[in-house]
Amino acid sequence: MAKNTAIPYKIYLKEDELPRAWYNVRADMRTDHRPLLNPATRQPLTVADLEPVFCTELAKQELNTQDRFIEIPEAVRNFYKMYRPSPVVRAYCLEQALHTPAHIYYKYEGGNTSGSHKLNSAIAQAYYASQQGLRGVTTETGAGQWGTALSMACGYFGLDCRVFMVKCSAQQKPYRKAVMETYNATIVSSPSDTTAVGRKMLAANPDNTGSLGTAISEAVELAVASEGYRYVLGSVLDQVLLHQSIIGLEAKAALDAYGVQPDIVIGCAGGGSNLGGLMAPYMGDRLAGKPAPYFIAVEPSSCPSLTRGRFAYDYCDTGHVTPLAKMYTLGSGYIPSSSHAGGLRYHGMSPILSQLYHDGYLDEARSVRQTEVFAAAELFARVEGTLAAPESAHAIRVAIDEALKCKESGEAKTILFGLTGTGYFDMAAYIAYNSGTMQDHVPDDEELAKGFATIPQVE
Amino acid sequence: MAKNTAIPYKIYLKEDELPRAWYNVRADMRTDHRPLLNPATRQPLTVADLEPVFCTELAKQELNTQDRFIEIPEAVRNFYKMYRPSPVVRAYCLEQALHTPAHIYYKYEGGNTSGSHKLNSAIAQAYYASQQGLRGVTTETGAGQWGTALSMACGYFGLDCRVFMVKCSAQQKPYRKAVMETYNATIVSSPSDTTAVGRKMLAANPDNTGSLGTAISEAVELAVASEGYRYVLGSVLDQVLLHQSIIGLEAKAALDAYGVQPDIVIGCAGGGSNLGGLMAPYMGDRLAGKPAPYFIAVEPSSCPSLTRGRFAYDYCDTGHVTPLAKMYTLGSGYIPSSSHAGGLRYHGMSPILSQLYHDGYLDEARSVRQTEVFAAAELFARVEGTLAAPESAHAIRVAIDEALKCKESGEAKTILFGLTGTGYFDMAAYIAYNSGTMQDHVPDDEELAKGFATIPQVE
Repeated sequence: MAKNTAIPYKIYLKEDELPRAWYNVRADMRTDHRPLLNPATRQPLTVADLEPVFCTELAKQELNTQDRFIEIPEAVRNFYKMYRPSPVVRAYCLEQALHTPAHIYYKYEGGNTSGSHKLNSAIAQAYYASQQGLRGVTTETGAGQWGTALSMACGYFGLDCRVFMVKCSAQQKPYRKAVMETYNATIVSSPSDTTAVGRKMLAANPDNTGSLGTAISEAVELAVASEGYRYVLGSVLDQVLLHQSIIGLEAKAALDAYGVQPDIVIGCAGGGSNLGGLMAPYMGDRLAGKPAPYFIAVEPSSCPSLTRGRFAYDYCDTGHVTPLAKMYTLGSGYIPSSSHAGGLRYHGMSPILSQLYHDGYLDEARSVRQTEVFAAAELFARVEGTLAAPESAHAIRVAIDEALKCKESGEAKTILFGLTGTGYFDMAAYIAYNSGTMQDHVPDDEELAKGFATIPQVE
Repeated sequence: MAKNTAIPYKIYLKEDELPRAWYNVRADMRTDHRPLLNPATRQPLTVADLEPVFCTELAKQELNTQDRFIEIPEAVRNFYKMYRPSPVVRAYCLEQALHTPAHIYYKYEGGNTSGSHKLNSAIAQAYYASQQGLRGVTTETGAGQWGTALSMACGYFGLDCRVFMVKCSAQQKPYRKAVMETYNATIVSSPSDTTAVGRKMLAANPDNTGSLGTAISEAVELAVASEGYRYVLGSVLDQVLLHQSIIGLEAKAALDAYGVQPDIVIGCAGGGSNLGGLMAPYMGDRLAGKPAPYFIAVEPSSCPSLTRGRFAYDYCDTGHVTPLAKMYTLGSGYIPSSSHAGGLRYHGMSPILSQLYHDGYLDEARSVRQTEVFAAAELFARVEGTLAAPESAHAIRVAIDEALKCKESGEAKTILFGLTGTGYFDMAAYIAYNSGTMQDHVPDDEELAKGFATIPQVE
C-alpha cells in the first residue's frame, strides 16, 4: 500500500542529531509580547518577583528576551535520549485513504509513558528544581497528561511531586492517578483540606468536585508555604514553549534531511505549548523574512480563545493568584462546556502565540466541532494505526481538511501536523462518540459575554 | 547520567533493513516437535484438516518444517513500516541504578496502539485472510492485547472482526473494549447466546463470567459455522512464532551492527510467542553449533508450565475443541490463581519452545512471584520511564536478577530481554501492588495433581 518514494514511513534523527539547545522564538519576535504583571501592583514582574513561586533558572527563562538559543543541560539531554528524537511520520496510508495528492507528515510525541509531549518540559523543570536543591514541586492536573509527565520527571530526579488533581477527574480516572503514584507522586484530590483555599471551597460546598482554577490555587499556595518547594506549570508560559521547541527543531532537521519544506504547519492549541514548539524554527524563518509555511492553530468550537476571544490582559487562572498576561482570552470566568478534549479547555492562550497571531505571523486560527474531530481520529486510527488523544485529533481534523482541499484543487501541498499524544485514557470520549451521544457545543454571544465580563480593565 | 560509550540509548534499524522474510526455526530443529493430532482420531493433522478452521496459507505455515525463511508479503511489510523496526534500547539508567557492570538491552515492542508485540502476527493473519477473500475472522481475548491487535489489523484490511471477550474482562475493562470497537471490531462477551457452546454454558449457569477456554470454543464454533470466516489465534501456534521472529531478526541485526553479542536472552513465556520470536535467530545459531546466548524463559509461579508441568500431549483449550499438541502442560483443567499477568495464565506452552526446552536448547525456565515482578516493574518505570505490562515485567525481573549477579561476580555480561508491551490497561494490578494487597501464589502439589489428572493418555 506504499507509494513508490524514497521517503521512509518514519524519519528518525540519529541520537547525536538531537538538538543541543532550545530555540527561544521570543528573541526573534518583531514585537515582544507585553510583560507579565503583578496582579496587585500591575507592575511588570522581575525574576525576584517570580522566585518565590518558580525555580530561579526557570524564572530567568520566563523573562529571557535576548538569547535565541539556550543550551539543553546534559542530564536533560540524556533523559531525552530515552524517548527522543521522536519520529516524523509520513502518513502514506492516510494519503491513500483520502485519495489526495497532498503529502502528509506528522511529528509523533505519544511514544513515551506520559503519552504526550508534556514530558519535554516536565523533565527540564524537574532538572532545574533538582539543581537548585529543592525538595519537590507542586502542580495541578486536569486530564492527567501533565501530572503524569511531571511524576515521571520527578521520579527520575528523586524529587517529591505533589499533584492537585481536579476531584472529578481523579474519581473518573483512577488509573491515571495510579500511573502517577507508580512514579511515586502524591496525588491530592482538589479541593482538599490541605490548603486554606481548599478548606474555604469545601466549607462553602462540601460536594465541590473541583476545577483547574482551584487546583492551581492550591498548588501555588502549597509551593509558596512549603520550605524547598516551587510551583511548576505545563503550558502557556514562555519557558514551556522554549522547552517544547525541541519538537519543531527535530521535525525541521528530519524534514530538511530529505529536502522537504512544509507548506502548512498545523497544531492543536489549548495553552499553546505544542503548536508553539512545533512551529518554533519555522516561525524563526518567517520572522527572518525567509520562506516559511502557513501556520494554523486549531481549537475546539467550545473554547475558541483565538477565534472569538479578546486580546487583553487577564488572569492565567480562575483563582486569580497568578500574574496577569496579555493574551487572547475568553475571560478567566468563562466556563467551557464539558468538551472531552480536556487539554484544550483553557480560557487563555500562550502570550507568545497570542502576540504572533495578533501580528499576523501565526496565520490562522480555526475552531472545529468535536464530533468532526472524533470522526477524523477514527479514520486516522484505522488507516495509520495510532489512537490519538482528543486534543491531538483536532490537528488531525484540519490536516485531513487541508488534504481534501488539495484533492479538489489538485495541488500536492506538504502538510505537517503535531500528533501530541495517545488516547488510551480518553476512551470514555471515544465511547460517547461511537454511541452517538457526543454533543457539539458552540457558545452563543451571551455565553461569551459572561466570560468577557470577568476580564479586568488593565492597560 | 550516560556512560561514555559509542552505543546510543536506542538502536533503530533503517526502514530498508526491515527483515524481508520471517525465520522458521522449526526447519533447523534437530528433533522436530511431535505433530498436532486430531482429537477424535488422534491422527496427525494435515493442511486439509486445518483448512475449515484456519486460512489455507496459515495452515500451510503451521505445518511447514522445510522452509527456513518465508517471505513477508509486501502489504504486511508496509504495515510493519508504520511501527517497525522497533528499537533495541540500552538501559543505561537501569544499569546505573543497579550499579552493575552488566550491559542491559531490551527490545521494545510496546510502541504501537495495540501496546504489544501481538500486532506482528495479527497483521500477517489478517492479510492472509484478506488474500483468501474471506469476510472476516473470529478470535478470543482475555486481557485484551491480542483482541486489540487483531482489531487494528482487521480495520486496516477492512475485514470483519469478531472478538469473544471473557465476560469478566469485558466488564472490568470497558476501555479495552472501546479501543477494539474504535477499530470497528464486534466484541461479544463470552459466554454468549450467539453460539451453541455459549447457550449451553448460560443454561447451566446464567451468571457464568466466562473463561478463555469457553471463549475459544465460541470463536471456533462461529468461524466453522459462518460462510467466509476463519478462526485466528495469537500465541502457541508455530505460525505465530514464525511471524514473531521479526522481533529477534531485528534485534540481532541492530546489535550485530554494533558488534554486540548477548550472553543471556530473556523473555516472558505464556504461550511462548514473544520469547520464541526474540530468541529465534540466536537459537538458529545454537542449532547450527555456533556460539549462542544462554536462553531463559520466565513464567509466573502461579502458572509454572515449563518449570513444573509435564511434557505430554494435551488439549490447547479447556473446551477440548482444538487439536492435541505435545507440549509442557499443567493440564487443560488447571485453574491458575487470579494472577494479574493475564497473558501468562495459559496451561500449556508452544510446541516449538517445549521441544527446545526438552532437548536442552532453551537452557532454563524460571518461575517468579508477582510481587517481585511488580517491584522490578516499578524500579524500571522510575529509571527507564516506560511502564511495562505485567507480563513483560516478568522478563524485567529476571534481567535485573542476572544484572545483580554480575554486580556480585564483577562480570560485564550482556543481557538482552524482551519488553513486550505497556501496562496502561493493567493499572488495577499496579494499584494492588502499591496498596500492599497483591498476593503471591505458588500452587502446591495437590493443586497441580488436579490439573495433571485432566491430561489425556496419548502416545
